[in-house]
Amino acid sequence: MASPGSGFWPFGAEEGSAAAETPGTARAWCQVAQKFTGGIGNKLCALLYGDAEKPVETSARAAAPGVAEPRPTCTCDKKPCGCQKADVNYAFLHSTDLLPTCNGEITTMSFLQDVVDILLQYVVKSFDRSTKVIDFHYPNELLQEYNWELADQPQTLEEILLNCRTTLKYAIKTGHPRYFNQLSTGLDMVGLAADWLTSAANTNMFTYEIAPVFVLLEYVTLRKMREMVGWPGGCGDGIFSPGGAISNMYAMLIARFKMFPEVKEKGMAAIPRLVAFTSEHSHFSVKKGAAALGIGTDSVILIRCDERGKMIPSDLERRIVEAKQKGFVPFLVSATAGTTVYGAFDPLIAIADICKKYKVWMHVDGAWGGGLLMSRKHKWKLNGIERANSVTWNPHKMMGVPLQCSALLVREEGLMQSCNQMHASYLFQQDKHYDLSYDTGDKALQCGRHVDVFKLWLMWRAKGTTGFEAQIDKCLELAEYLYNKIKNREGYEMVFDGKPQHTNVCFWYIPPSLRGMEDSEERTSRLMKVAPVIKARMMEYGTTMVSYQPLGDKVNFFRMVISNPAATHQDIDFLIDEIERLGQDL
Amino acid sequence: MASPGSGFWPFGAEEGSAAAETPGTARAWCQVAQKFTGGIGNKLCALLYGDAEKPVETSARAAAPGVAEPRPTCTCDKKPCGCQKADVNYAFLHSTDLLPTCNGEITTMSFLQDVVDILLQYVVKSFDRSTKVIDFHYPNELLQEYNWELADQPQTLEEILLNCRTTLKYAIKTGHPRYFNQLSTGLDMVGLAADWLTSAANTNMFTYEIAPVFVLLEYVTLRKMREMVGWPGGCGDGIFSPGGAISNMYAMLIARFKMFPEVKEKGMAAIPRLVAFTSEHSHFSVKKGAAALGIGTDSVILIRCDERGKMIPSDLERRIVEAKQKGFVPFLVSATAGTTVYGAFDPLIAIADICKKYKVWMHVDGAWGGGLLMSRKHKWKLNGIERANSVTWNPHKMMGVPLQCSALLVREEGLMQSCNQMHASYLFQQDKHYDLSYDTGDKALQCGRHVDVFKLWLMWRAKGTTGFEAQIDKCLELAEYLYNKIKNREGYEMVFDGKPQHTNVCFWYIPPSLRGMEDSEERTSRLMKVAPVIKARMMEYGTTMVSYQPLGDKVNFFRMVISNPAATHQDIDFLIDEIERLGQDL
Repeated sequence: MASPGSGFWPFGAEEGSAAAETPGTARAWCQVAQKFTGGIGNKLCALLYGDAEKPVETSARAAAPGVAEPRPTCTCDKKPCGCQKADVNYAFLHSTDLLPTCNGEITTMSFLQDVVDILLQYVVKSFDRSTKVIDFHYPNELLQEYNWELADQPQTLEEILLNCRTTLKYAIKTGHPRYFNQLSTGLDMVGLAADWLTSAANTNMFTYEIAPVFVLLEYVTLRKMREMVGWPGGCGDGIFSPGGAISNMYAMLIARFKMFPEVKEKGMAAIPRLVAFTSEHSHFSVKKGAAALGIGTDSVILIRCDERGKMIPSDLERRIVEAKQKGFVPFLVSATAGTTVYGAFDPLIAIADICKKYKVWMHVDGAWGGGLLMSRKHKWKLNGIERANSVTWNPHKMMGVPLQCSALLVREEGLMQSCNQMHASYLFQQDKHYDLSYDTGDKALQCGRHVDVFKLWLMWRAKGTTGFEAQIDKCLELAEYLYNKIKNREGYEMVFDGKPQHTNVCFWYIPPSLRGMEDSEERTSRLMKVAPVIKARMMEYGTTMVSYQPLGDKVNFFRMVISNPAATHQDIDFLIDEIERLGQDL
Repeated sequence: MASPGSGFWPFGAEEGSAAAETPGTARAWCQVAQKFTGGIGNKLCALLYGDAEKPVETSARAAAPGVAEPRPTCTCDKKPCGCQKADVNYAFLHSTDLLPTCNGEITTMSFLQDVVDILLQYVVKSFDRSTKVIDFHYPNELLQEYNWELADQPQTLEEILLNCRTTLKYAIKTGHPRYFNQLSTGLDMVGLAADWLTSAANTNMFTYEIAPVFVLLEYVTLRKMREMVGWPGGCGDGIFSPGGAISNMYAMLIARFKMFPEVKEKGMAAIPRLVAFTSEHSHFSVKKGAAALGIGTDSVILIRCDERGKMIPSDLERRIVEAKQKGFVPFLVSATAGTTVYGAFDPLIAIADICKKYKVWMHVDGAWGGGLLMSRKHKWKLNGIERANSVTWNPHKMMGVPLQCSALLVREEGLMQSCNQMHASYLFQQDKHYDLSYDTGDKALQCGRHVDVFKLWLMWRAKGTTGFEAQIDKCLELAEYLYNKIKNREGYEMVFDGKPQHTNVCFWYIPPSLRGMEDSEERTSRLMKVAPVIKARMMEYGTTMVSYQPLGDKVNFFRMVISNPAATHQDIDFLIDEIERLGQDL
């Protein structure tokens, strides 16, 4: 692997480079350095002019061994303190040489800059089609190839930089235009910048006191999302939660509380047996949630789907009636807008009618499909969502926001707070000097909550709604391109008929040896092995990645999804060529 | 506010700076540029030599207005493609000019570099005692001061950079040496670097397939943490979860499942009424968890504490016996190692004996106190933790790992998986080509799971266990310094007697006007208002921040905690001076 790009700092340039050679250059650098506040500019200039004779010792890289200079003693509380110069030979530096160590500014900036250079390299390579999506190694190989163990003694900063490079060497390039493996793909540059800022701000969402801006941005962004859902004036409530599964669980929790508020104190023992309804193609998190909340997975009734994977409303109604006859209490229907495998949109209007008729909480799991609300061309697929009581919507999926960013939106204001609050007096003091409605922490099950909103907010500012729309429309157009390309192509069978509604395109690749064969047990058992073998080969070559799975009585098929705006028609062509190249001998 | 520091790129330097003036300088820069792979070095060199005459147009900053050059058409799938040069005048650039846009490399790197420069400035200022901890504004002021709204149309990259600066201007400097407000303070430089890398890698923890390195690092790190807890060979299980409250909820979930596995399918209706026990000083998440899991908050029995905030084991035993007599089933004791307010350590050995006697799952909530396991001097305070069935330990608190990083450790292997798995076939395919034990996603309630481990792992490599130890010992020493300073000082009353066990120091500041006063209703009601007023003034001046709260019959007192290794004795002195300055007139 190449060494990292040089740092921002002149003494971070190549040893003996021209940068440190001439007074004129030092002057130019000094001008640059003056843009920093806090006295650093002056320190740098002094360093540049004063230490021009010793470029090697101030090298940011540890190419040549050297001896670390003893650090002068200094008083940290006086500023600027008297110490002269940081040592930036990483081979002799440790984390204790970085801030908050006295006079650690230069070393720190040099170190962080070198990390950033490694990351910038990685980012650029991520989009480079001539690089691998993954340099795959089996777990045992990877464990043996490098020493990952944690020890008593510190490593040098040189070793830390090496750890960073090694980690990235074996990482998946999730921004790569040919990485199609998950619903969350791509690497958005503004989102990345926002995530970096979030890390530097390093705070927690529970109170306005410690996250003033982020709390307001969450307020602004959730309101906007509720507007897009179609709730008048964006009214309602919501929260960013750690992923769609947790958002769905929140919806169940709130729906239960709305119907039986006593459950909070008394538990499930005090209330009738509840049942929830969701389609057989819905996300497994509905069952996980039911297990966790003490409802039990047996009380999640799976409603039949049509051949396109959409919930059949008449079956829903039938099962609700049946449950009531048994004395159970239907409390939640979780409709799906964009199922995980087929990308299907449940018929929300019909479901809303049924929920209204039987007075059941309507939740829409739009973790995957919610993004289509940004598109004037495609949002009709979610018609009826405005009638939901709650909505899960993961901007980290179709909108390409870096992981994680999942919102739960709730139509009734105040319910989340009543459901989850425990009035911790050390956080939510009632005698604070500002408007306490901005202390949102007690709405959540979490105490500390990561700042997930800033990425989405900054991306939204940078793209505008129209930018998200363009990105999403493009991905859907690509999915249609793929569908049109393979629907009649030799060696392909579609898992379901018709144009994809989302970007999910589900298909079998039939290798030449199976093409003439009649439908039989042997054919099925051989077909079952095709996708896993092709996938394993893809990963070993590192050329592309796409997911596969069985579903119901259907053996392993490929589920192609496109959420990465970096993908092009040529990448779709490449995928098809690659599947055929890797699968033709099977 | 000053303009940001210049970018790494030469054309990112000041307009007309020396950097672009002389061929010699161009050569030096070109050498630097060559360190980048992927052909960027060559592109940069061509740009440097070829465009030396137009330094203004290539300025990375938009100080002077200019017209964006039309972008040459190009074919994205050919590499290197023929386009000549990116425009880096941000006033005319949008997110669509960044990668994955064809030839977006230079603009992207320039943009990300300028964001990093803003962040580096912020980081350095965070540790500068001459800057404010917070530039406080009331919510309505902040909403009016700047337009935070989301619109249809995109903003320019210039505006995006401004958004970043504005966001940071109003943010809390959580790394500031005088920010004592939360259990999570400080900003670790290696942790920050690791978080930046995590963002660039932008992946999800559910499978080895898409997070090979991070999954292995989680494995290595959790095993090491279990070793520190004292489980032989580091055996057991665990997961990083989104915060201590969720970790505690996981513990309850798993304890319930261990005793009554049928609860997963059948729900709480099928099992006896459960009760959990925790101290009256424990974290509110135990109650939140009980409410969510359908157990109910009434079934969380609060055990009395001694005057230092430690659970009284005899009261625990009495309440367990009582509950059993009522026909309830005690299923969990959640002992606390480091309570939120007092920093108390429950007597774990005595509690373990009781749990063993009554066959109850012993959980230790060491979210705050777990860090002391890294210290040979202080770890005795957690003696008995090795007998726990599960442990919550938040490295984002006492160990200074950036938010969030919380681990749940479970002694019995396999239990998390059985409790939470739902076998989603599209993620956890059983016919994959690698060892499936590394697909850990089904252990969690979450589906997608953020990569929280890398920050901790890289910091551990950089510090070694001994580095964490030194950092923690220092914070405890500072707490003792504060205690010694105020215990007999005029105007202070300690909330409890004796040396702090953790870094929590709880005290009232008594303003001169209350010092002579007898204990009376009036004194109490006036004292109650002292801490909130001082706190509000602290925030308005922005000089320091420390938390306060009432507890039981004790009116508002300050809870000082120290988890930031940047703090010094002088900062403690400053805090005391500041409290007296801001409170003497009350």
